[in-house]
Amino acid sequence: MLATRKSQTGQNLTINGDRLWSTLMETAQFGATRKGGIKRLALSDEDRLVRNWLVAKARERGYSVGVDDLGNIYVQRAGRDPDKLPVAMGSHLDTQPTGGKFDGVLGVLAGLEVLRTLDDAGIETDAPLCLINWTNEEGARFAPGEMGSEVFAGDVERSFALTRMDANGITVADALAGIGYRGTERTGERRFAAMVELHIEQGPTLEAEGVPIGVVSHAKGQIWCNGVVEGRESHAGTTPMHLRKDALTAFAEFALAVEAIARAEAPGGVGTIGVAEIGPGSRNTVPGGVQFSLEFRHPEAQALARMYADAHAAAARISNARGVGVMVEKIWSKAPVTFAPEVVETISHAADTLGLKHLPMISGAGHDACAVATVMPTAMIFVPCKDGISHNEAESATPSDCADGANVLLHSVLALAGVHQKAGG
Amino acid sequence: MLATRKSQTGQNLTINGDRLWSTLMETAQFGATRKGGIKRLALSDEDRLVRNWLVAKARERGYSVGVDDLGNIYVQRAGRDPDKLPVAMGSHLDTQPTGGKFDGVLGVLAGLEVLRTLDDAGIETDAPLCLINWTNEEGARFAPGEMGSEVFAGDVERSFALTRMDANGITVADALAGIGYRGTERTGERRFAAMVELHIEQGPTLEAEGVPIGVVSHAKGQIWCNGVVEGRESHAGTTPMHLRKDALTAFAEFALAVEAIARAEAPGGVGTIGVAEIGPGSRNTVPGGVQFSLEFRHPEAQALARMYADAHAAAARISNARGVGVMVEKIWSKAPVTFAPEVVETISHAADTLGLKHLPMISGAGHDACAVATVMPTAMIFVPCKDGISHNEAESATPSDCADGANVLLHSVLALAGVHQKAGG
Repeated sequence: MLATRKSQTGQNLTINGDRLWSTLMETAQFGATRKGGIKRLALSDEDRLVRNWLVAKARERGYSVGVDDLGNIYVQRAGRDPDKLPVAMGSHLDTQPTGGKFDGVLGVLAGLEVLRTLDDAGIETDAPLCLINWTNEEGARFAPGEMGSEVFAGDVERSFALTRMDANGITVADALAGIGYRGTERTGERRFAAMVELHIEQGPTLEAEGVPIGVVSHAKGQIWCNGVVEGRESHAGTTPMHLRKDALTAFAEFALAVEAIARAEAPGGVGTIGVAEIGPGSRNTVPGGVQFSLEFRHPEAQALARMYADAHAAAARISNARGVGVMVEKIWSKAPVTFAPEVVETISHAADTLGLKHLPMISGAGHDACAVATVMPTAMIFVPCKDGISHNEAESATPSDCADGANVLLHSVLALAGVHQKAGG
Repeated sequence: MLATRKSQTGQNLTINGDRLWSTLMETAQFGATRKGGIKRLALSDEDRLVRNWLVAKARERGYSVGVDDLGNIYVQRAGRDPDKLPVAMGSHLDTQPTGGKFDGVLGVLAGLEVLRTLDDAGIETDAPLCLINWTNEEGARFAPGEMGSEVFAGDVERSFALTRMDANGITVADALAGIGYRGTERTGERRFAAMVELHIEQGPTLEAEGVPIGVVSHAKGQIWCNGVVEGRESHAGTTPMHLRKDALTAFAEFALAVEAIARAEAPGGVGTIGVAEIGPGSRNTVPGGVQFSLEFRHPEAQALARMYADAHAAAARISNARGVGVMVEKIWSKAPVTFAPEVVETISHAADTLGLKHLPMISGAGHDACAVATVMPTAMIFVPCKDGISHNEAESATPSDCADGANVLLHSVLALAGVHQKAGG
C-alpha cells in the first residue's frame, strides 16, 4: 500500500447528490404504496429485500458486513489505524405501515453515499467508518420501537426483545430467522468511537425558518400514560344537566388542561392526547367512560416531571368539581438525552465548513441515536421535510436538502475519524 | 244484555299488582339476557314470541285482535256504545339490544292488566278500550324508531318504513312477514278518542323527589346533528404547541361550549355529545380529525332553535381562534309536543283520586305518545325507575311503583271512556 498523507478535504469534497437521490427512489420500490409512500414493516419480506440490497451494495464495494442477533447490520469500511474504534453512521430502513420515503431511510442511504464518495475520492480515514442499519426503529409491527438500538445500549433485554410478537403471534426471533437476518454476533458487543445519525426533522421548524441544517444537541424526555374517565352513562333526553356525570365533558376539560400545561412549558414542552375512546358511543346516551392516551415531552427532566404532576393535579381538580373519576397512570418514560458536546460541535463545524446555515435543535421524537447515546458519543443532523409531515405517505424532502444533510454527515465523520487521502493516481 | 248503570268506581277499584308483576316477569323470558335484561329487537323471533303471548292472552278474554300493515297490534275490549271512538292505551314490547324489563313493556302489560281488572270487576265502559302494541319503538334494529306510531300519525311514509333494512339487509316488510305480523289493515286507518301511555321515567327526577307519579304535559323537541372537526395530523414529539392544529383540543373546547349552552337553558334544555371518533388515533400523533354526534332537546321550540344557533356560533368562534374547521349539520329534528290538556288533567285527577302524589313533568325522551299526539288527544304517565337508568339491563322499577302507574292508567281511561258497571251477580 502506498503512503498516505493528511489532506485538507475542505468544502470541495461533496457527496454525489444524484446518486443519493437515485438510491432513495430505487429502494423506495421495496414496499412502495400507491400513494407514494412505503410500507416496509420491520422484518417483513420488504425489509428483507431492502436489507439484501444494502448488503449487495456493500459487498460490491468490498466493505465488511456483520449482522448481530437482533438483525442490526454493520457495513464497515476499513480505516488506516486498526486500533481505532470505528466512527458510526446509523439509522433504520424499516417504516411505518403508511410511512414515507425518508424517515430513517435517508440516514442509512446517506451513510452509504458517504462511504462511496470516499472510495471515489480515494480517501482513507484514520478510524474505520461503520454504517449501521438498526432493526425495528418504528415499533409498528413489534413494540417497542428502537428495538435494535435499545438492546445494543442494554436498555432493553435481548430475551424480551426476541420474544415480542406481532399481531399474528410471530416473534421477533422467528421473523429474524424467517428473513435470514438472525446473526450470530452478540448485540452490543461492538464498540464505536462515536455515532452520527442524519434524519429528517419530522417537524416544521427548519422549513419555517428557511434553514437547511439542524444540529441536534438534545432529545426530549418522554412520559407516556394511560388515562381513564369514569362518569355515569345515562339517557341524553331525560337526565337534566345538573344530574349528569358526563365522562366526555370531564375529559374535554382535562384535554384543555393538558394543552394549557404544555403551552406553559413551551417551546420545549409538548403534551398530546392522541387516542380517546368514548363509551358507550351512542347518540342519545350521556357518555359514561373515556379511555385515553397522554404523553408529555420536554428536554429538561425537571420540567417533564412538573408537567406530569400538573396533569395529576388537573385530573384531581376536575374529578372533585364534577364528581367523576379522572385517572392518569404512567406506562413508560424515557429520560431526556444530552448528546455528546464534541460530536455536536463537530457537526456544527462541518456545516460551517460547507457554508450551510444551521440551527441548534432539540429532537422531539425518539431515534436510534437517543437509544445509543448512553454507550457512545452521539449526535444528530436534521434536514427539513415538507410541512413537517412524517409517518405519512406524503412525507417529502428535497434532493438538495438531502444532499446538504449527507454532506454535513460526510464532513462530520471525516473530522471524527481523521482523514487521509490515498496518494497515487 | 242486562241494563247497566253508572257507577262510582272511585279509589276502591285497583288493578291486581301481583298479576301485573307476574306478567312482567313471564314475558321477560322472551329474550332474557344473562344480566337480567331483555334483548328483544323489533320483529325478531323473541318479538314474535311476546306478540303471540299477548294475542293469546287477549283471545282468552275474548278481546278482538287487529294487526295493521306495520305490525301494530290492537287489542280491543268492547264498550257499551258502538258509536264512541275507543280510548287507547299504548306502548311497545320491543327493547334495546341490552334493554331492560320495563321500557315500553310496562305500558303494554299495564294496559292488559287494566282490561282484565275491568273484566274481573264486571265493569263495562261506555267507549271501547283499545290496547296498542306499537311496532319498533326502539329503532335499534331498524332506524328510525317510533316507526309504527310515526307511520300511524302520517309523519313517516309507509313505503319508507317498510323498506328500511337491518344490518343484514332484511327489510321491515320481510321481517313483518317472517314473524307473521304483516297485517292487512292500513296503518293510521283507526280513529281513537284519546291515548294514554304509561312508561318508566327513564330519568332520575321522580326517584329523587320521592314522588310515585309523573303527569307528562309536554315532550321536548329535539335537534340531532352530525359534526366534524378538521385539524392537521402531525407528530406529537416534533410539533411545537403553537404550530399545532389539534382537532381533539378544538373538539374539547366545543364539547364544553355545548355543555355551557345547555346549562344556560336548564332545566328544560339538555345538550349531549354521545359519539366522538378521534382520528387517526395514534399515541404519538396530534389528532387530525374528530367526527361526533350532537343533540339538543328543549320543550320550547324557540329555545331549541337558540341552542342550535349558539352551537353554530361556538363552532365558528373556535374555528377562527384555532385555525381548524368545526362544522355542525342538522340531520333530524322533531318539534316539541304539547300533550292534550284534557288528557293531562284527567291523569292528574286520577292520581288525586288514588291519593298518589304526582309531579307535572316534561318528557325528555321520544315515545309513541309523542308520535301520535298530532292525530289524537294524548298524554303520558311516568313512574320512577331506579337511578333513572334505562336502555340498560340494570333497568329496574318496583312492583309498587308499577302498580301505582297501572292504577292511574286504569282510572284515567275509565274517566275518558265513561264507566258502566254491569248489573247482576
